[in-house]
Amino acid sequence: MEQVSSWRAHGGTQGVYTHPSISTGTPMTFSVFVPDHAPGARLPVLWYLSGLTCTHANVTEKGEYRAACAARGIVFVAPDTSPRGDEVPDDEGYDFGKGAGFYVDATEAPWAANFRMRSYIESELPALVGAHFPVDLARQGITGHSMGGHGALTIALRNPGRFRSVSAFAPIVSPLSCPWGEKALGGYLGSDRAAWAQYDACALIADGARLPDLLVDQGEADTFLDGQLKTHLLAEACAAAGQPATIRMQPGYDHSYYFISTFMADHVGWHAERLSA
Amino acid sequence: MEQVSSWRAHGGTQGVYTHPSISTGTPMTFSVFVPDHAPGARLPVLWYLSGLTCTHANVTEKGEYRAACAARGIVFVAPDTSPRGDEVPDDEGYDFGKGAGFYVDATEAPWAANFRMRSYIESELPALVGAHFPVDLARQGITGHSMGGHGALTIALRNPGRFRSVSAFAPIVSPLSCPWGEKALGGYLGSDRAAWAQYDACALIADGARLPDLLVDQGEADTFLDGQLKTHLLAEACAAAGQPATIRMQPGYDHSYYFISTFMADHVGWHAERLSA
Repeated sequence: MEQVSSWRAHGGTQGVYTHPSISTGTPMTFSVFVPDHAPGARLPVLWYLSGLTCTHANVTEKGEYRAACAARGIVFVAPDTSPRGDEVPDDEGYDFGKGAGFYVDATEAPWAANFRMRSYIESELPALVGAHFPVDLARQGITGHSMGGHGALTIALRNPGRFRSVSAFAPIVSPLSCPWGEKALGGYLGSDRAAWAQYDACALIADGARLPDLLVDQGEADTFLDGQLKTHLLAEACAAAGQPATIRMQPGYDHSYYFISTFMADHVGWHAERLSA
Repeated sequence: MEQVSSWRAHGGTQGVYTHPSISTGTPMTFSVFVPDHAPGARLPVLWYLSGLTCTHANVTEKGEYRAACAARGIVFVAPDTSPRGDEVPDDEGYDFGKGAGFYVDATEAPWAANFRMRSYIESELPALVGAHFPVDLARQGITGHSMGGHGALTIALRNPGRFRSVSAFAPIVSPLSCPWGEKALGGYLGSDRAAWAQYDACALIADGARLPDLLVDQGEADTFLDGQLKTHLLAEACAAAGQPATIRMQPGYDHSYYFISTFMADHVGWHAERLSA
């Protein structure tokens, strides 16, 4: 693992790191914010999964999480959204291929060789971060935006007990039920929709997976709400299954980092309550 | 004036606007954040002047000012740093020409036609903002970063009584005494250094100009500190003249928006105390 850059920020250290990934077969870049802490202390960690077209840099520059994480003593990790590099296959659309890994392990050619973001986020990166940073992996929370909200919800639902706290900003709640999901899961996993359900938060909840609780903020002026995000499907799935959920519709807010940054401190606080208990 | 974009953010509205400028003879773009407020209310306004290479966008995306401005009811305005456009003369360096207006009215050809950022910031933009936004021009504060910190200090010093509060992040405190200043003022104003003194905070203070007080934060790990910024010259000028000043050296911090965003809420609070009195 190599440090790409490091800044003093908000009473902590914001770093960017790169390492050769076994999961993707490519170099992978991620950012980590570590608040100042007592020597030897290990802090809770909050994973943030980004949305379509993003790298680690978007939330690192625009997410406004550092003040809240420093105040609550939380390490914040932001991975990339896909493998990168000239050798990695891509698609002409912004919603498939590079920048659009959808947090799945692809099974279809030519994607299966590199697009293994599920393994990367679920297994490889936690081991790396646990080895190199002062984190307590018994206290993990996970959140994300849009495609990354989908990633946060489905990774937490498939790994019961690993995350004490789960939230999302404007998540894709059901890839089975929207054009982004149909294109991505069809492309990465093939046409058998039965293989898709493990990557669909609503289907996982209907199938019995549970979280301790969950927090979702969704902007009402988000132009992707009706056609892609369909927050109501998550509300219905949670209600039908008895899954506790706090789903807040936010008037006037869109899909941008202006929305995310507005509610970031709320989410960090919500995770902190559950991670410091 | 036209609205380029608008986002709901932090309980307010973040907009970007463009207008044809009489001062520069070009279109000029700026951003304004307006917190929600009672109908008919007029809020104090904080001007933020950006540094070399920046547009309005850098602080708008990375400055982390909205939460603090919303909490304190302050309008935040971020102008561009120079005229723009294919017709505008430029220099190959990042430190002169486009992105480097230095908040002066140029007198030398070919710069004098467009590089009139002093008039733009001191006169034209306040009139425009006062006419189109719910601001109370009797309650103005000004701040800025690097070249923009120089702009904030010198504009406030030349306009006694206009600003109730003045601060700066890592300002160029004496263009007369550093390579950035020598290149810019020499280029825009010609070789007669007597004409430069009106654009030098230390010289203005030595010449008797006064502010109510001022706040400066400066990172000790800022690579421009020794060669360009020379914060100690401001401390010495203030001490010699009896100008009240709070100048804070911040260990570990550099010149980036990671530094600015760390101390932004402090600065907004400092302005708010003086603007709401």
